[in-house]
Amino acid sequence: MTVCLLVHPDRPDPAERLVPVDADTPQVSVTDLGVTRGDGVFEVFTVVDGRPQAVEAHLRRLANSAVMVELAAPDLALFEQAVRRAAAEEYRATHAHELLVKLIITRGIEDAEPAVSTAWVLGFPNADHTRERRDGVDVITLDRGYPHDIAARAPWLLAGAKTLSYAINRSVLREASRRGADDVLFVSSDGYVLEGPSSSLVVRRGTRIWTPSTAQGLLRGTTQGCVFEEMAARGYATGEALLRSDDLAQADGMWLASSGRLLAPIRSLDGRAVQVDHALTDAINEALLARTD
Amino acid sequence: MTVCLLVHPDRPDPAERLVPVDADTPQVSVTDLGVTRGDGVFEVFTVVDGRPQAVEAHLRRLANSAVMVELAAPDLALFEQAVRRAAAEEYRATHAHELLVKLIITRGIEDAEPAVSTAWVLGFPNADHTRERRDGVDVITLDRGYPHDIAARAPWLLAGAKTLSYAINRSVLREASRRGADDVLFVSSDGYVLEGPSSSLVVRRGTRIWTPSTAQGLLRGTTQGCVFEEMAARGYATGEALLRSDDLAQADGMWLASSGRLLAPIRSLDGRAVQVDHALTDAINEALLARTD
Repeated sequence: MTVCLLVHPDRPDPAERLVPVDADTPQVSVTDLGVTRGDGVFEVFTVVDGRPQAVEAHLRRLANSAVMVELAAPDLALFEQAVRRAAAEEYRATHAHELLVKLIITRGIEDAEPAVSTAWVLGFPNADHTRERRDGVDVITLDRGYPHDIAARAPWLLAGAKTLSYAINRSVLREASRRGADDVLFVSSDGYVLEGPSSSLVVRRGTRIWTPSTAQGLLRGTTQGCVFEEMAARGYATGEALLRSDDLAQADGMWLASSGRLLAPIRSLDGRAVQVDHALTDAINEALLARTD
Repeated sequence: MTVCLLVHPDRPDPAERLVPVDADTPQVSVTDLGVTRGDGVFEVFTVVDGRPQAVEAHLRRLANSAVMVELAAPDLALFEQAVRRAAAEEYRATHAHELLVKLIITRGIEDAEPAVSTAWVLGFPNADHTRERRDGVDVITLDRGYPHDIAARAPWLLAGAKTLSYAINRSVLREASRRGADDVLFVSSDGYVLEGPSSSLVVRRGTRIWTPSTAQGLLRGTTQGCVFEEMAARGYATGEALLRSDDLAQADGMWLASSGRLLAPIRSLDGRAVQVDHALTDAINEALLARTD
């Protein structure tokens, strides 16, 4: 089942700001800029036993995306309340250990006066990712087309904002599937390693753990942030770096980190086998799934 | 007012394939990939006295976009019928000389079995573009981030598909507004002139009329196509070319061509004045607005 709450920050009565609705009944206008222009922002929260994870990091990123696309600053307290309520209600209905909550804010109905965003949260069970977490994923690199300094050079291209315009993020997965792979690692046009279409790259070399520098217009990974905390607790040094594709050949292990799949080891990159540390992967995923806040 | 017809190509009864609905009542699901991922395609038709223009060119482009994003081939006969009916009904209600019809196809509700696209057409009055057509528009160039050969190099980036993921196309207009300009001309990262966020560039040099080569991952302009026909009828030679930004300094005139605004002369580019041929502009726009098919 799917829980859906519409979010109306502008309603005078606080009791009317979160409105439970039937997720199977249409709720979005045919002239909403979310659907006519992919014009809005979103987040997807991991939920463990009814508790959304990394809430502050997600809300910070949401606020940053809103700034980048010049949406009004979201009422973070209200959206946090919406996320927690959707998670709790979906958990009450399904008792699923792992849920996801998706939060969407669009620019609202075109030419509406005054302009009012459309917003909702959805709570639903996570897919079963046991196999990918255990066996790993086959990944191909694909050119993202932009140089690695695109965010500084051309901020109007919105690199680093989590917008609803995800057609490319979906298209590259079809390309991966055509090539017999599971997922994609974007590489800049000048040879730097970036991120997946819905994940962050985590690289181990000895006792050091790296993720590509977010200054390249990458999303700050919320799951990757939690992974870094867990790795640090195990004695690894963590940090961001500019990594070139060639640098990955020296890696002792690589993962893609995301809200739904958590930490999925990369078992092959562009057809070359990559070493998988099953014990470390399992330990981190178990820790992520044992979080209590 | 806005006319809205839902389009259901898969319904067995042909009489139920076009369904008039209230455009102000929500019709789109909160889990539709059109709104959650900007995953779909669209077209916008000019309508003159109730008659949609360049229908065949729009439908051809729609089919091409669908191929690029791997949507099922749209039932073009049915969508043509939908567009003509929305145009006629909106014209009957408003008697507006200029209307627009927007056609949207999304990938449909996520994980639905079988997968079924969501589709609709909207008919609504065009905005008043008298001033831009007469006085011209101030345009700035902005880096599109991609090299000019991106479509051949990285087809997974969907350059040349008219998808619902238009957040960048909207963001660049806000950047133009911040700089006191009306519109944007994209330039490739390697210095080639491309297109506007919702228009094609038309350049005159003497008796020759050029538009940037669509092989650069550009949309084939439907209005630009009609403009070329009108220009050819007036003795101009028309064609596509690879144009570098520097080449524009030698132009005798430039326009942005689009369904809503038709032919808008560029009166300044990056702050430098551009010569405007008012007589030619007016003649072409009058011809475009006098079309009978």
